[in-house]
Amino acid sequence: MTVTIADIERARTLLEGHIKRTPILQSPGISAQLGLSVYLKAENLQRAGSFKVRGALNKIHSLTDDEKARGVIAASAGNHAQGVALAASSLGIRSVICMPEGAPISKLEATQNYGAQVVLHGDTYDDAYQKALELQAEHGYTFMHGFDDPYTIAGQGTVALEILEDLPEVKTVVAPIGGGGLMAGVALAVKSRRPDVRVVGVQASGAPAVFLSQQQGKLVATDSVHTIADGIAIKQPGELCWQIIREHVDDIVLVEEEEIAQSILYLLERAKVIVEGAGAVGMAALLGDKIADVEGPVCVVLSGGNIDVNIISRIIERGLVKAGRYIRLSTFVPDRPGGLQQLLATVAQAGANVIDVHHERWLSKVSIGEVEINLSLETRNARHVDEILAVLKARGYRVWIIPPYRPSEW
Amino acid sequence: MTVTIADIERARTLLEGHIKRTPILQSPGISAQLGLSVYLKAENLQRAGSFKVRGALNKIHSLTDDEKARGVIAASAGNHAQGVALAASSLGIRSVICMPEGAPISKLEATQNYGAQVVLHGDTYDDAYQKALELQAEHGYTFMHGFDDPYTIAGQGTVALEILEDLPEVKTVVAPIGGGGLMAGVALAVKSRRPDVRVVGVQASGAPAVFLSQQQGKLVATDSVHTIADGIAIKQPGELCWQIIREHVDDIVLVEEEEIAQSILYLLERAKVIVEGAGAVGMAALLGDKIADVEGPVCVVLSGGNIDVNIISRIIERGLVKAGRYIRLSTFVPDRPGGLQQLLATVAQAGANVIDVHHERWLSKVSIGEVEINLSLETRNARHVDEILAVLKARGYRVWIIPPYRPSEW
Repeated sequence: MTVTIADIERARTLLEGHIKRTPILQSPGISAQLGLSVYLKAENLQRAGSFKVRGALNKIHSLTDDEKARGVIAASAGNHAQGVALAASSLGIRSVICMPEGAPISKLEATQNYGAQVVLHGDTYDDAYQKALELQAEHGYTFMHGFDDPYTIAGQGTVALEILEDLPEVKTVVAPIGGGGLMAGVALAVKSRRPDVRVVGVQASGAPAVFLSQQQGKLVATDSVHTIADGIAIKQPGELCWQIIREHVDDIVLVEEEEIAQSILYLLERAKVIVEGAGAVGMAALLGDKIADVEGPVCVVLSGGNIDVNIISRIIERGLVKAGRYIRLSTFVPDRPGGLQQLLATVAQAGANVIDVHHERWLSKVSIGEVEINLSLETRNARHVDEILAVLKARGYRVWIIPPYRPSEW
Repeated sequence: MTVTIADIERARTLLEGHIKRTPILQSPGISAQLGLSVYLKAENLQRAGSFKVRGALNKIHSLTDDEKARGVIAASAGNHAQGVALAASSLGIRSVICMPEGAPISKLEATQNYGAQVVLHGDTYDDAYQKALELQAEHGYTFMHGFDDPYTIAGQGTVALEILEDLPEVKTVVAPIGGGGLMAGVALAVKSRRPDVRVVGVQASGAPAVFLSQQQGKLVATDSVHTIADGIAIKQPGELCWQIIREHVDDIVLVEEEEIAQSILYLLERAKVIVEGAGAVGMAALLGDKIADVEGPVCVVLSGGNIDVNIISRIIERGLVKAGRYIRLSTFVPDRPGGLQQLLATVAQAGANVIDVHHERWLSKVSIGEVEINLSLETRNARHVDEILAVLKARGYRVWIIPPYRPSEW
């Protein structure tokens, strides 16, 4: 069982008309900041929001007429679910997707909307997976693996063919690694066509199985995974994927959770696109300078954009705190009419926007006659925070910043 | 003073290599939901984050060598500032941008990063504008108007040439209207090349000057503007823009603030792109069914993506409230050990995630021996909210939902 460039070329022909040829975005701003020519292969703009539909379509194409007539099954609450559902309905094939009962309603509904029958079963992915195996045995469905399948890998490899065509000057291709399907396909395609192009894989440090495998020279699994990049939160990478990755990928690097979150925010603010955690790890590696001697033009694969808006909102808020654009501070005012008003007048004069005022009467060590006030403020930047603190102190307020933000002078 | 299709064609040649040919994104999901083939011309992915660089480049190209040597000036704290700054530095020309002193630091820094000298002056746009006129007189700069200039209009019209080439099957083109520069250029290009294509303009109901002008058959200004779509918050539209719009635009429709916010969130979740308020009004018009008998394929111009992340975060939170995915509720528990814990156990069992717990001891009408608790919860959807309320009531809790705040803050 193996995959060749001919398989990827064949996949590409089969996929035509069923997928989008996603744009390669260039951001001169990002390039200028990094001192490196950076391009973004926007698979977050792919149908169903990620590259997964490519592999799923290619796999379904490979089935016999009899297998197609019986339909396909998969276990996933993520991009694989939506990719399989869309691929199957594009080709007029029945699909069943097993998810654990706690699956996010947004994922469930999206998968149903793409035409799949969704079966909710058990508490964990493993329960859903067992259910899928049962239903497969009972109904003769074809099981669609998320990554460790030669047709799936060949389908994902079509991403790289598009990169090489649209950006022939590329010197480095960076892609995320979870189970390894995307990375294997991309590496195989790049190295077959352009062995001079460097291929770099990126894993989340909370889900580092392929990174560890590379270090140890053999495929290893991890006991647990913990990352906001749920699309690459995989304990057991694919055996076939690993064989291709070990042969064709030049480097594998790790990025931390905080770096992934920052990268999501950076791409949102600078490139104006929404990426999920897995889709942001490549950019995180560049921003964190994790790739030694990286040479441009670099093409980073933004693998997907299916991120819950809750999480975006939290990432924005954390980013604002970090940038000194949202702070919480604590101080004391006289517990009488006008005490708070005077504080707020000072804050307004300093140009900060008040988000929230909280009186802390119970737990505070404040003396009788004073009250502790916690203020949440929108501020302009770290310098502005320093100015606000200086103004408050000059007016005689004792002021503390409530972590996590740390002002420069403290 | 007029503009012709030949001017737009000439602008297009001049702009080549200085701007991005932005992609036209298709979202089969959006199209399926609206029952209408929808395409998005992604000028939010343009250099400096909006279409403005097109007009600015074309205007600067038109200057004499002597004018170029003296440099250009503009008054803006928005996309025009960044567009002029980038256009000028692309062509090796000096630029000065006047902004009011309260301008958002992000806009100020972005404009400086594109190579402009920024002059902060006064409290309002009008103060900054007066300062720009002064500096112009003193130094002989060329004043760059934001929209009411034939070269600027011709530059913006190149957006439409790209649409007609990349999407020849288009039947309707929808674009935002503020001062009218983009709309005038787009309408002129479309009607000159393809008079069969319908052209629709969209204004925010809080900044409706061109809509009102169309109704009254003459150019009118409004006394004030009030909209989150700051890119089109214009009191006095351009005279030349208006003449072109009255001749070439088929319909002008209005959208409400809430619809603009929802459209931003919709594009973020469904199309995976960040648009600013002005960039979202076209999609808002489609989502709100504001365009009578609209015929597809429709191409909506997403005019820009420069939106503060603060605002995105608030829009997400409001959207979550609206969708029943974030609620605040009020109830009472016995004011003794275990009282709160029992409430939280019930909530956890119902599958809601607790974001915030607030004890209301002071203002509550609760009897002694009870305490009012305000809970902020993350929930799955409106149905889930009903389930949670039912479970709480079944356990004997008196429960109220605290209403979401209204958009008075905008």
